[in-house]
Amino acid sequence: MYIYNFEDGNKDMRDILGGKGAGLAEMTRLHLPVPKGFTISSDSCLKYLDDNKFFDELKPEIDEKINELELKTHKTFGYGENPLLVSVRSGARVSMPGMMDTILNLGLNSETVNSMIKKTGNSHFVLDSYRRLIEMYSDVVLGLPKGSFGEILNNMKKEKGYTKDSELTDDDLRLLISKYKENYKNLTGYEFSENSKELLYNAVKAVFKSWNTERAKVYRKLNEISDSYGTAVNVQEMVFGNLNDNSATGVCFSRNPVNGKNELFGEYLTNAQGEDIVSGVRTPSPIAKLKEDMPNVYDEFLSYAKELERHYKDMQDMEFTIEDGHLYILQTRNGKRTAKADVKCAVDMVREGIITKEEAILRVDSNRLDEVLHKEFNEDDLKGHEPIAKGLAASPGAAYGKVYFSAEDIKKAHDDGEENLILVRTDTSPEDIVGMKLANGMLTVRGGMTSHAAVVARGMGSCCISGCSDIEIDYDKKLFRVGKNIVHEKDYISLDGSTGNVYVGMIKTEDAKASVELQTFMSWCDDIRKIGVRANCDTKIDAENAVKFGAEGVGLCRTEHMFFTDERIFDLRRMILSPNEEIRKESLKKLEEYQRKDFLDIFSVMKERPVIIRLLDPPLHEFLPKKEEDIKKLAKSLDMSIEDIKKEIDEKKEFNPMMGHRGCRLDVTYPEIGRMQADAIAKAAIDAKKMGINVVSKIMIPLTISKKEYLFVKDIIVNELDKVMKDEGVKFDYKIGTMIETPRAAILANTIAPYADFMSFGTNDLTQLTLGFSRDDSPKFINSYIDNGLIKKDPFKSIDTEGVGKLVDLACRLARLANPSIELGVCGEHGGDRDSIEFFSRIGLNYVSCSPYRLLNARCSLAKAAIKEKMD
Amino acid sequence: MYIYNFEDGNKDMRDILGGKGAGLAEMTRLHLPVPKGFTISSDSCLKYLDDNKFFDELKPEIDEKINELELKTHKTFGYGENPLLVSVRSGARVSMPGMMDTILNLGLNSETVNSMIKKTGNSHFVLDSYRRLIEMYSDVVLGLPKGSFGEILNNMKKEKGYTKDSELTDDDLRLLISKYKENYKNLTGYEFSENSKELLYNAVKAVFKSWNTERAKVYRKLNEISDSYGTAVNVQEMVFGNLNDNSATGVCFSRNPVNGKNELFGEYLTNAQGEDIVSGVRTPSPIAKLKEDMPNVYDEFLSYAKELERHYKDMQDMEFTIEDGHLYILQTRNGKRTAKADVKCAVDMVREGIITKEEAILRVDSNRLDEVLHKEFNEDDLKGHEPIAKGLAASPGAAYGKVYFSAEDIKKAHDDGEENLILVRTDTSPEDIVGMKLANGMLTVRGGMTSHAAVVARGMGSCCISGCSDIEIDYDKKLFRVGKNIVHEKDYISLDGSTGNVYVGMIKTEDAKASVELQTFMSWCDDIRKIGVRANCDTKIDAENAVKFGAEGVGLCRTEHMFFTDERIFDLRRMILSPNEEIRKESLKKLEEYQRKDFLDIFSVMKERPVIIRLLDPPLHEFLPKKEEDIKKLAKSLDMSIEDIKKEIDEKKEFNPMMGHRGCRLDVTYPEIGRMQADAIAKAAIDAKKMGINVVSKIMIPLTISKKEYLFVKDIIVNELDKVMKDEGVKFDYKIGTMIETPRAAILANTIAPYADFMSFGTNDLTQLTLGFSRDDSPKFINSYIDNGLIKKDPFKSIDTEGVGKLVDLACRLARLANPSIELGVCGEHGGDRDSIEFFSRIGLNYVSCSPYRLLNARCSLAKAAIKEKMD
Repeated sequence: MYIYNFEDGNKDMRDILGGKGAGLAEMTRLHLPVPKGFTISSDSCLKYLDDNKFFDELKPEIDEKINELELKTHKTFGYGENPLLVSVRSGARVSMPGMMDTILNLGLNSETVNSMIKKTGNSHFVLDSYRRLIEMYSDVVLGLPKGSFGEILNNMKKEKGYTKDSELTDDDLRLLISKYKENYKNLTGYEFSENSKELLYNAVKAVFKSWNTERAKVYRKLNEISDSYGTAVNVQEMVFGNLNDNSATGVCFSRNPVNGKNELFGEYLTNAQGEDIVSGVRTPSPIAKLKEDMPNVYDEFLSYAKELERHYKDMQDMEFTIEDGHLYILQTRNGKRTAKADVKCAVDMVREGIITKEEAILRVDSNRLDEVLHKEFNEDDLKGHEPIAKGLAASPGAAYGKVYFSAEDIKKAHDDGEENLILVRTDTSPEDIVGMKLANGMLTVRGGMTSHAAVVARGMGSCCISGCSDIEIDYDKKLFRVGKNIVHEKDYISLDGSTGNVYVGMIKTEDAKASVELQTFMSWCDDIRKIGVRANCDTKIDAENAVKFGAEGVGLCRTEHMFFTDERIFDLRRMILSPNEEIRKESLKKLEEYQRKDFLDIFSVMKERPVIIRLLDPPLHEFLPKKEEDIKKLAKSLDMSIEDIKKEIDEKKEFNPMMGHRGCRLDVTYPEIGRMQADAIAKAAIDAKKMGINVVSKIMIPLTISKKEYLFVKDIIVNELDKVMKDEGVKFDYKIGTMIETPRAAILANTIAPYADFMSFGTNDLTQLTLGFSRDDSPKFINSYIDNGLIKKDPFKSIDTEGVGKLVDLACRLARLANPSIELGVCGEHGGDRDSIEFFSRIGLNYVSCSPYRLLNARCSLAKAAIKEKMD
Repeated sequence: MYIYNFEDGNKDMRDILGGKGAGLAEMTRLHLPVPKGFTISSDSCLKYLDDNKFFDELKPEIDEKINELELKTHKTFGYGENPLLVSVRSGARVSMPGMMDTILNLGLNSETVNSMIKKTGNSHFVLDSYRRLIEMYSDVVLGLPKGSFGEILNNMKKEKGYTKDSELTDDDLRLLISKYKENYKNLTGYEFSENSKELLYNAVKAVFKSWNTERAKVYRKLNEISDSYGTAVNVQEMVFGNLNDNSATGVCFSRNPVNGKNELFGEYLTNAQGEDIVSGVRTPSPIAKLKEDMPNVYDEFLSYAKELERHYKDMQDMEFTIEDGHLYILQTRNGKRTAKADVKCAVDMVREGIITKEEAILRVDSNRLDEVLHKEFNEDDLKGHEPIAKGLAASPGAAYGKVYFSAEDIKKAHDDGEENLILVRTDTSPEDIVGMKLANGMLTVRGGMTSHAAVVARGMGSCCISGCSDIEIDYDKKLFRVGKNIVHEKDYISLDGSTGNVYVGMIKTEDAKASVELQTFMSWCDDIRKIGVRANCDTKIDAENAVKFGAEGVGLCRTEHMFFTDERIFDLRRMILSPNEEIRKESLKKLEEYQRKDFLDIFSVMKERPVIIRLLDPPLHEFLPKKEEDIKKLAKSLDMSIEDIKKEIDEKKEFNPMMGHRGCRLDVTYPEIGRMQADAIAKAAIDAKKMGINVVSKIMIPLTISKKEYLFVKDIIVNELDKVMKDEGVKFDYKIGTMIETPRAAILANTIAPYADFMSFGTNDLTQLTLGFSRDDSPKFINSYIDNGLIKKDPFKSIDTEGVGKLVDLACRLARLANPSIELGVCGEHGGDRDSIEFFSRIGLNYVSCSPYRLLNARCSLAKAAIKEKMD
């Protein structure tokens, strides 16, 4: 059986009937006024796409269902005095708005047009419907140029001096129909068929085929929808919102999809068909007006909306048609909404007793929760702006500003008192950090979701679009091109980091506020989740945000980020290149003072919450200067020749820096760096203690490969901490642990665990090494992998559970066997990704750590995970 | 008990007694004429170094043993009429020649000097011995400047007009002794002690302490000797080769250590002490002369030498002294020898019934077998040359030639008809390949044993010294500096790739020939080893060498190496940068023709032996030009602007190319490349078939991460192979397999194995990814790891069995579970390393593959592994 009457299906049959079909079936079951019809299953689509001959098998079943529909409606299809007209609409398992095609008014032909005119007494309506059928069929089913029909219509209107379609007389329409048919014949070589069945078959096939159009494929890829679903086809008796002035058609949400308020939100047009709303030729009325115009119909609709909401336990997005005063519901589905509305709906529905807290949590799209906190475009201002390019939504929030093409230019503009600056670059590097901090938003051509720009931006909570390969920067001319658009320096652009959309011009932004509902919702999540949430914080501001957004500690403090100011990086560079012991010691002393202050800042915000500080991680050469003036300054200060400095810089360069001289390898070769950091941590902890804060400093050794190496570095740190405690006569608690980032450390976690208080999985590096995918280089080929179905998702966005996840799971088991009290967490970018978090919860980590702006997502995702685990 | 009399020990007590002590004990047990004495164990050394106070515990035991020695020799120590004189010598578990210190003639003081004169009637000898004691003690025990004593002696000789020490009269010597003592007092503030016990204690302590001198540490590091062994101390009754003209001292090997002939090989000096031989002031006589001078003593020595050889089952290196016609053996140990001698000795000893074949195989140092095949310095010519620098012995063999600092200059010199060229560079890149091929040898400043230069050189069998950080290149001035030496372009240098030594000037080289003994030895190895041996071959010459050195197939043919000629790389570049389909196809067609010929060349040499061809592996940007002229040429040919070409090159650059767009990722994004290669392989196989060779082409997909990816690429290849077979109407056998190089592929080997005929572990990449150690960058920090005992060996030289090895082992088990008939091998650099090969044999791989010049080593190592496994 490939076809189901609406009365034979239900809402749980989405996989077979598609979303629309399941909705129509369910509403039929609920005895809502749904025009009768049937759904051709999505299996049929797949079978047809696999082998066209399958249609021969399907055809008799379609005929049978049309017969049944004729009996139920007391109408006849394609002939007779009471003709049956049907619509053919696609409907996949997952909503794909605008992606699939619709054909209306099937069943009209020369004979039935006359019957319909007789029956309705509205010849204009019937003739116009037939005209539309010819045009729509030609366009949608045969792909004939739409313009050629539009031209015929426009020519006629011009000739006659009409401005509106409604001015066309019946004769005009009849002439138009014959001209359309003539055009059809010219384009195809065939007459437009009088056989309605034939048109119906072709319409069904066209819907099937539309599953594989380019735009459908692209939409599915962007939305991670499987190609293997196929689409169902709904064949339904027509009802007419354009029958007369007592008719109308409209769309309506059961609640406000922008702010979530419990009120009908929608619009309608009297005497119109659905496509008239979409086309935007006439301006629809707000739904509230229906209450005045047709109070009974409004009340009836409201009661259906509430019923559907209670039935589906979710806010509904409905389509309806009023035919001569009779209300019909043509579609219902869960309504898309903003993150803000999502939370409010969920919380309200719990209070209204429609859903449970658990259902509310499972419902809310945690990945979008961050949006609630970031700047957003002013809605009114956004209207009328079309994106000129789309990149990766790397760091959420909205921003506008003047374009600059270098961090220095941003700094200069800032110093000149300019505000609202946008940095546009091919990619960014640590040198750009000052400019990045001053920019409202960043747009990069290269780099993925975890590129330097993306990570820094998310950390700072500022907006970033990365990997926007549509744009082409010309640094010399200070402009970028995208298609035909050219954007010069100081031109305004606007970025939406939540969608990846780039706009020309200034779109005003406004602050998002944390609503009461959000607070309530998050507290429910916290009650339900089983594992801890910490934040990645490098600065006091990060720490403050972390506390604000609910972090229970700092899971990762990247000490290298503390050096990215002019003064500090200068001293760091002096230390790295120091030609003698004396200068090295002097520079280390300075760096220690900076760090001591940094740590104290964070401690004073985090109070007794645990703070995991990671020892210096990146290769030292990353800190070395590239600019001539910086090199000069350094040479002067070190009393070295510029040539020698350059030579040193050159010698320190690496072929594969990710696998180079970094992480705890730095402490093995330069133990004085580790000692300096331990010193700073110890002194900051003592400072904090004197302020009455009992800090638990957790020191994390990065990029470990073995027990011996770990113990070697641990000894350096512990000796220094103990020394400071002894010298200062103050004791404080500390823990030492390590980051598991190399496959070697993962498979040998049992050997390291007995000596570690905690382990944190650095899943960024672990992903790089396990797959051999460089984070920065893989964007060049990762799309080929996704397009060819070789991987499902970018493994830097969502953890590769099968490979990297297997290693993490294995390492956890090994570590716990060797040290049952060890604390296990994760602090890679995956700590802020919904699917990854569910995985981490399932394998029983103690906590996840993510950037402060991902905390809401993390807390909610963890709650979801806990609920799902309970259900399993 | 810390001290053992010689008669209480034996040869198996090396760990406690050291090599020398164990040898003395064993010879004593064999009743050879060994002066009596005792050995202070190496434990004592470690205890003393740990805590100086330990000596108080040791002292009574020394006293006791001296007492016993007095009783045994009927002499008294430090007093009396028949005084006991002893030597104190170090002797660690492993031979450390020249590293530790010796003190002779302890027991002499003002009193015993007189007794000795009375006893021997040779006052000159006794006084001279005392003088030497004072000097030696001052130098070795106290570290006083040796020159100050030499100066006193020289002044006196000058004053008196003497040229030789022997001209000194007794009075001169007495005066000299008092002047020495005066100098001693001036330098130390104390009198030279008359208490011989005190001098003995201090001598023992000095030997203990010499374990930790810088040169000892460096020696141990270079020779991979543990710091935790400590040294034993041998205290032994003095015998005097300098007593009279019927006395002598000498060193002798039981066989020729250069060529392995069964003949005594050594030299001696009459009337001399050991140090006189070492100092080289007098020229010693060859051992054959002893047969004329003292035929009885010679015969006695020869019989001892044979006895020791049979006893130790190895060629012996002995020290002896003849005191007034009496022969004493002072030391025996296994003799160091050349690789050539090593093989001949082993084979001869098997034939002589001294050892079994298995013992012979275990004995031979397989890592050095390659030396037998490479060019070597003419021995005579080598004499008198001191190395000016030492780098890594990256590719064995010797070479001399004129220095050039760029591959182009080498090419130019070659084109000008010059021969014998040496390339000296900071490091090399694929662009240098032409120059590298033309050079006799290469010397690089950077890079380890697996750097580009090293790998290429080993592959070509040419000599290479890499990582020679002593030298500093000035490209502008076309010279390099090392210490005070400056070597200009066109100066001659000589390189020994087997030792890492760099010499100034020309040292002639000669061809090494494979001896009959070598052939015999290798056939024994082949009989015993259990697993296969293949070679890594990229050219016909490689393949010919491989067959010559016993390869059973090609384990790795790196197709990218085939593109490194001007013409071919040009077409490859055109393909990579092709602006349109047409040019791409045209370039691919050309490349296919090249490859087809290459493969046929290799097939025609390897005949029916399996040939594993790896699909293109390196990132494409590695092939792109750097030189302006190459860019220009390319731009012209592609009708593109130079700017555009540069932009393309820039865009293709990668941050971490090792984890970049390479391996089978190239086939995923550019399936046409895989298709081209499959095409070339198929056509070559058909060509071969037409020549009567039934090739089994094995195609290897590199850098796999998953089953899906593997199958995707496999499908591309298989379809193409099948297509060519169909088109040409000829069938041939092929197999498809993959390289396991990513940790992900290793832990998921069971998912891939069912679809693979074979798997080869690419342990270079696997090591990089498992440890996160970039092969090219790790030399910067790997020494710190070795120095601090964090790793034992460079994991790129010898496989990290604990980490990488664990993954390989795991992957093997997983793969065999899923596909019991799968063939498993290894083709990384580790395939040619002795320790790694033993590991691979143990975990049961089917074969190892290495560069042709490592085949002897591989075959021998595998035989060793098989023998050891049998013994376990």
